[in-house]
Amino acid sequence: MLPPESPLGILLTAPALEQYGERILAAVEPLHPARLLCHHTDQPLSDEEIARVHVAYVSPELIGRHDEVDTERRPRAFQDELLRATHLAWLHVCSAGTDRPVYRQLHERGVTVTHSAGANALSVAHTALAGMLALLRDVPFWVRMQAERRWRTQRHEDSRPDLDGSTVVIVGTGAIGQALARSCQALDMRVLGVRRRAAPVAHFHAVYGHDQLDEVLPQADWLVLACPLTPETHHMIGREQMARLPAQARLVNVGRGPLVDEAALLHALESGRLAGAYSDVFEQEPLPPESPLWTAPNLLISSHSAGAVQGFGDRATARFTGNLQAWLRGDPMANVASF
Amino acid sequence: MLPPESPLGILLTAPALEQYGERILAAVEPLHPARLLCHHTDQPLSDEEIARVHVAYVSPELIGRHDEVDTERRPRAFQDELLRATHLAWLHVCSAGTDRPVYRQLHERGVTVTHSAGANALSVAHTALAGMLALLRDVPFWVRMQAERRWRTQRHEDSRPDLDGSTVVIVGTGAIGQALARSCQALDMRVLGVRRRAAPVAHFHAVYGHDQLDEVLPQADWLVLACPLTPETHHMIGREQMARLPAQARLVNVGRGPLVDEAALLHALESGRLAGAYSDVFEQEPLPPESPLWTAPNLLISSHSAGAVQGFGDRATARFTGNLQAWLRGDPMANVASF
Repeated sequence: MLPPESPLGILLTAPALEQYGERILAAVEPLHPARLLCHHTDQPLSDEEIARVHVAYVSPELIGRHDEVDTERRPRAFQDELLRATHLAWLHVCSAGTDRPVYRQLHERGVTVTHSAGANALSVAHTALAGMLALLRDVPFWVRMQAERRWRTQRHEDSRPDLDGSTVVIVGTGAIGQALARSCQALDMRVLGVRRRAAPVAHFHAVYGHDQLDEVLPQADWLVLACPLTPETHHMIGREQMARLPAQARLVNVGRGPLVDEAALLHALESGRLAGAYSDVFEQEPLPPESPLWTAPNLLISSHSAGAVQGFGDRATARFTGNLQAWLRGDPMANVASF
Repeated sequence: MLPPESPLGILLTAPALEQYGERILAAVEPLHPARLLCHHTDQPLSDEEIARVHVAYVSPELIGRHDEVDTERRPRAFQDELLRATHLAWLHVCSAGTDRPVYRQLHERGVTVTHSAGANALSVAHTALAGMLALLRDVPFWVRMQAERRWRTQRHEDSRPDLDGSTVVIVGTGAIGQALARSCQALDMRVLGVRRRAAPVAHFHAVYGHDQLDEVLPQADWLVLACPLTPETHHMIGREQMARLPAQARLVNVGRGPLVDEAALLHALESGRLAGAYSDVFEQEPLPPESPLWTAPNLLISSHSAGAVQGFGDRATARFTGNLQAWLRGDPMANVASF
């Protein structure tokens, strides 16, 4: 820990400093003197300044890829600074995932990494539900017909059965999985969970371990991925796993792109092995314009937006300041990432 | 009631006879001899035959408007037969709504009309939820961007707040309203109902009478219409009611088109008074290609398909045969329409 007279150096982007600087100082200063260091994308900090950074915050505008071009310049510049910050002891990330390689790199150097899991869990869960219901009722077809001013009533015989009695398998039983499980129970679905190790979890009828995935898949009318990306979950859903799903199964991915083998997904959709899929995340983001996924049959795509929610920055920052106070008091912090 | 030796004449369309004839006979014949009379669209029954019709079934293919042209020829021909059937005592309709003028006309002649409310209540409720979540997450934007192969991540600040804590007002507390109320409760929404007369109803936090609508509207972040069309509910949501909604409110109509004054709806969307709307039903159906609603801002349209569900015909027919047995036994029938 720092000597009491030495101010705690907190690295923030310029937008984060403007928006959250005051409340961060208000949280820290009763416990310890602090100094906010401002990072501008095109202006690296001096060696002297960067050596004063003890804590850094990866704020929301570093996470979203909002534009089609040059989406990585700002986060890359910030990452470069993090790697230069030799006294960095702790990094808080506003996202729930900590799968960017730089986080592991910092972790291996001894930096504690914490994340904001739960800050937008409800948003992600409700987006997953929006995707499921959009596939069920074929909302993309509505939108296309509306654009052509065509009235096309859905026939009963071309429709899907109701959700009640069907089974959803949710991989990931954290805050997102639990919120989705609860909604699915209210739709009278059977809700099964998959997590690292089998254990009862609220809102799930049963929860299995990763090693039981092969047994669970044949029951999955809906398979929803809402788990972190780790070496163990990379490509956890490939051609072999899709073959185990029942006919007419549908896949929803609101976790991370590389959870799914995209070549296998494309094949499953083209062959009709999967009745449909919704994916918010992709192996390569932004999804390149030439990707065949854009036009894969019955695939609904959103652009890594599942967690977008008004007020997110406030919530993630509250998690950061909460952890700041815990850290300064020597209490355990919430959401410490494991690698 | 019929003399015991005289067979009960049941009028069915040709497709209904082919698909459901056997199970209808199986339900009736243990109780009374029966004769199925088959109606072909272009072949009216002879006067002698039509006089033998005691019961008729408006089967699913008479309800959906599946095509853009000539959608009314088949139902109109069947209605003409119903009006000719002077001994018709009872008509079962496979839909939940009995707002077609012919039903009232028959009712006024003394014909009992029963409907199939509940047969696809879950489907309609889940479609309403699909529409709400599609508006919340802007699924139409996803679909349009996907068609152009454009990656457009939603910014937090451009997103909507989460649903938890927001209020949904559901007009209609029948099977559809209750199923939707239950889902909305699982999304941590406050769920208010409006029905003819205030009374507690399962899954609603509170239920108001129609006469209290003006008090309830200012609370409605979401206003969902899932009630029958009657003279009292015609244009129940017009310009004045929309003005009472909070800013950023959204409207969902899975009831009947004329519940809403469409000119007022269009105006509310164009002026930004409503943040969005989803409608499955319209004052004129099919919605004419020249209607300005097709391109109204933030309006999502489906083509009277909210209740489309695999297996619907079986469920509606089961309600018909259940009522047939009750009727022959002199027991009360389910879902007798009031006019």
